[in-house]
Amino acid sequence: RSTTHQPASVSDTSSVSPKLDKSGPVLVEILEDTKKYRVCKTDIVPDDVDQIQKHVRHYADEFNLDLIVITGGTGFSERDTTPEAIIPLLTRQTPGITHLLLASSLAITPFAALSRPVTGIRNKTLIITLPGSPKACKENMAAIINVLPHGLDLIRGEPVAMLHAAI
Amino acid sequence: RSTTHQPASVSDTSSVSPKLDKSGPVLVEILEDTKKYRVCKTDIVPDDVDQIQKHVRHYADEFNLDLIVITGGTGFSERDTTPEAIIPLLTRQTPGITHLLLASSLAITPFAALSRPVTGIRNKTLIITLPGSPKACKENMAAIINVLPHGLDLIRGEPVAMLHAAI
Amino acid sequence: RSTTHQPASVSDTSSVSPKLDKSGPVLVEILEDTKKYRVCKTDIVPDDVDQIQKHVRHYADEFNLDLIVITGGTGFSERDTTPEAIIPLLTRQTPGITHLLLASSLAITPFAALSRPVTGIRNKTLIITLPGSPKACKENMAAIINVLPHGLDLIRGEPVAMLHAAI
Ligand code: NA
Repeated sequence: RSTTHQPASVSDTSSVSPKLDKSGPVLVEILEDTKKYRVCKTDIVPDDVDQIQKHVRHYADEFNLDLIVITGGTGFSERDTTPEAIIPLLTRQTPGITHLLLASSLAITPFAALSRPVTGIRNKTLIITLPGSPKACKENMAAIINVLPHGLDLIRGEPVAMLHAAI
Repeated sequence: RSTTHQPASVSDTSSVSPKLDKSGPVLVEILEDTKKYRVCKTDIVPDDVDQIQKHVRHYADEFNLDLIVITGGTGFSERDTTPEAIIPLLTRQTPGITHLLLASSLAITPFAALSRPVTGIRNKTLIITLPGSPKACKENMAAIINVLPHGLDLIRGEPVAMLHAAI
Repeated sequence: RSTTHQPASVSDTSSVSPKLDKSGPVLVEILEDTKKYRVCKTDIVPDDVDQIQKHVRHYADEFNLDLIVITGGTGFSERDTTPEAIIPLLTRQTPGITHLLLASSLAITPFAALSRPVTGIRNKTLIITLPGSPKACKENMAAIINVLPHGLDLIRGEPVAMLHAAI
């Protein structure tokens, strides 16, 4: 593993709306355009707490990926259970990333108040949830894309001297 | 129930300061002015975890209201226990609403850092806590009043096509 | 104890980087410059959950301090465990302070998304975590220094009439 090619997984939760699985390809493109990520797996996962947890455990615990990004399932409808699936799996909270996601979304539309993002670390894997709509997903990813590599390096113990002034 | 007349409950916690129960009427006026809510009940509840929880369970679990708004009890003094009463009752977190409340309050005064709002969903009921002072309560409600109806529709399973782009 | 001389404790977590223990003196200076705090104790605590918790329990439960400020240990590296040490000790959350810390940090640099601040109340003691770098620590403290005294007065039951309009 090189610090500039961090294996990532991208997942869509999309059991109901066929529109949602448009976000996966959008995300892959954004991540790979940075030349800093190698997306090693994309999946479509049903909107089901057990299925989402099984998926995350698989890629975090067995594949030991640096980053898992999940789009969708973070809204207010009954089938939106991504946060409830992810929260119990986190070993450390990352409120700064959640804040940046929400602040940048709310700068675009107050309806972002209806998103329920969750971000955090499971052992050595950073987990990020993004909105299911391709537009919002893209905007959210753009807000954090430049800070994520440093975060992933810190989690993995890479030296990141320039960050000392910021955190 | 029609999607444009969502039954809401408004509660004041006001065992100590008689000023606080001015926020209830302020809130009722704001909600009913939108023509989108029918306030079906307003109560004054003592600043007591058990009493607040009993009140919320009653209106969420038995009356199955769409929205419960509680003003007061979210500050730093010892009697401010609204968050501690509400948090254990939530089945889903709504960090986007909390973020919008805090961001809009902090844009008015840095002393909003001393508010401790909690928002979330209990089954099919959205629960929002607002400051006890009529001024801050009004400002907070104004910040979220336009996004709440869509959130309530999503919780109840109403189709809200236009939201797909935002969340 | 006078309301204008609130005893505070300042702690560095700094088992690894010798740079970190520069933040303690910076903080003491900021607090004492306000003439509102008397820093009664500064410590350097190892980056260890048990040690941090023992330290906080000592000053909160035995010394009954108004304020404990901890710098460092809030980043993404494996040794950064301050939030995990503090969260279980809190009896009340203070999301408004956390929001103000993150919003003001993110206004300076998006890399503040990689900080993991925790703030809250343990019985009558306000606990704040700040970044380990002197620069970020100073900037964060500046963002909250003027609202903290009112928060501490409210926790201790001092009358703070002017705050009613804000919270
Ligand atoms: Na903000």
